[in-house]
Amino acid sequence: MIIVGELINASRKKIGEAISGRDAEYIGKIAREQMEAGAHYIDVNAGIFVDDEPGCLRWLVETVQKEHDIPCSIDSPSPAAIETALSVHKGTPMINSISLEKDRYDQLLPILAGTNMKIVALCMSDDGMPQTVEDRLSIADKLVNGLLQHNVAIENIFIDPLVQPISTNKDFGMGFLDAVEEIMKRFEGIHTMCGLSNISFGLPARKFLNRVFAVMAIANGLDGLIINPLDRQLMGNLIAAEALAGRDDYCMNYLKAFRAGGLE
Amino acid sequence: MIIVGELINASRKKIGEAISGRDAEYIGKIAREQMEAGAHYIDVNAGIFVDDEPGCLRWLVETVQKEHDIPCSIDSPSPAAIETALSVHKGTPMINSISLEKDRYDQLLPILAGTNMKIVALCMSDDGMPQTVEDRLSIADKLVNGLLQHNVAIENIFIDPLVQPISTNKDFGMGFLDAVEEIMKRFEGIHTMCGLSNISFGLPARKFLNRVFAVMAIANGLDGLIINPLDRQLMGNLIAAEALAGRDDYCMNYLKAFRAGGLE
Repeated sequence: MIIVGELINASRKKIGEAISGRDAEYIGKIAREQMEAGAHYIDVNAGIFVDDEPGCLRWLVETVQKEHDIPCSIDSPSPAAIETALSVHKGTPMINSISLEKDRYDQLLPILAGTNMKIVALCMSDDGMPQTVEDRLSIADKLVNGLLQHNVAIENIFIDPLVQPISTNKDFGMGFLDAVEEIMKRFEGIHTMCGLSNISFGLPARKFLNRVFAVMAIANGLDGLIINPLDRQLMGNLIAAEALAGRDDYCMNYLKAFRAGGLE
Repeated sequence: MIIVGELINASRKKIGEAISGRDAEYIGKIAREQMEAGAHYIDVNAGIFVDDEPGCLRWLVETVQKEHDIPCSIDSPSPAAIETALSVHKGTPMINSISLEKDRYDQLLPILAGTNMKIVALCMSDDGMPQTVEDRLSIADKLVNGLLQHNVAIENIFIDPLVQPISTNKDFGMGFLDAVEEIMKRFEGIHTMCGLSNISFGLPARKFLNRVFAVMAIANGLDGLIINPLDRQLMGNLIAAEALAGRDDYCMNYLKAFRAGGLE
């Protein structure tokens, strides 16, 4: 399971303030906490700073990597902001994200072509959010084929089938889960990835619902998540689900988490 | 989700003692608690009373149904014990269980043929426990076809693909989950059912692991469980998973459970 720590996002008040004030200590601390909790990538998002997004994103990458030897997930729809952040990134970053929206796709593809970067590819097009499994698979096919033709290895592609809230349509949960299963079967070696929180929009006890949904997605083959790794109950669920899904040889991680008191 | 309450099992010390002493009050109380917690069937098992199993099972059915209007799940491998219990059962019981073991199959089939009873059919044969998905599907095929040919409706069949511990083989979890998914696809209208606890045999934090596995099984289509319905965290997980799987119109049960404080 590839864990992307989601906390360094400017839409969170304290992070937004830390970016404005160039508070490197605070950003470094949030990065370290996520790393220590098991994140493999640190997501950096400066989307609220519309005009200065590229500069803020560059500063975030530099700040995270100054103290910590960990790659970033560069989280922006803007090719210009991504290119600026890439200019200072050390190691192999994750790009979050490309989609089938024409402008975004056409501008990002040349930046990603032939590289080893990890690429999150959203199942979204100019027609908007996908509604059905078929919508998701049709967009995934186009994204995967486009990336492969531009010399991106299948192992570096993370398809995000896009979670939509079950409060608006009760079939949105299974639609997502079925898409994950089909994508993992159809493209050998590919990854799937998502953020969870949208599933529970409009309902109470959202964290609880998100944790349960993460387990269901793992049962269907999901192997990447953009989450808050400091949520110990969520992390415990993921460790248990991975062992149950046969992804934890001799249940070593499960036993280690148990001994460390990390299982709820 | 069809919930069978598992607590009235003679292998549990207090229950064994209550059966020996014909303590109707205690048995009635355990039945009521499970009913109130959401059980649709009350499992009754007197397996430890080898010679007197039929008599004990009959007494359990009478005792449970004396005060409570709920069907029993008659839990025995013995056709004689099942027939004795059936002689006093009111309403439509669940029979737990038939299997492909020759003696058991040949003796139970005539009792079940042409009835409306709910039938748990274990994916077990005289060759022992199934190891792979294919083993499970091959036995399931034979069980389903045999029952259909004997005028049992598909809606009354609950296939139990048999959970085996991931501590002995890391693929046993996915083997079970894949079998559930395939059985639900292959036989329209059928149910799948299982007990959970075997999955976590040999590992620590077993209840936690069992709860996570229940969620994974629901993601794959499982719609029956033999569990302790007094485990509130497990029941909360089931309610959330059902909403996420699109089985809870307008998330009504989820919202009701939230209001009642039933979500962890």
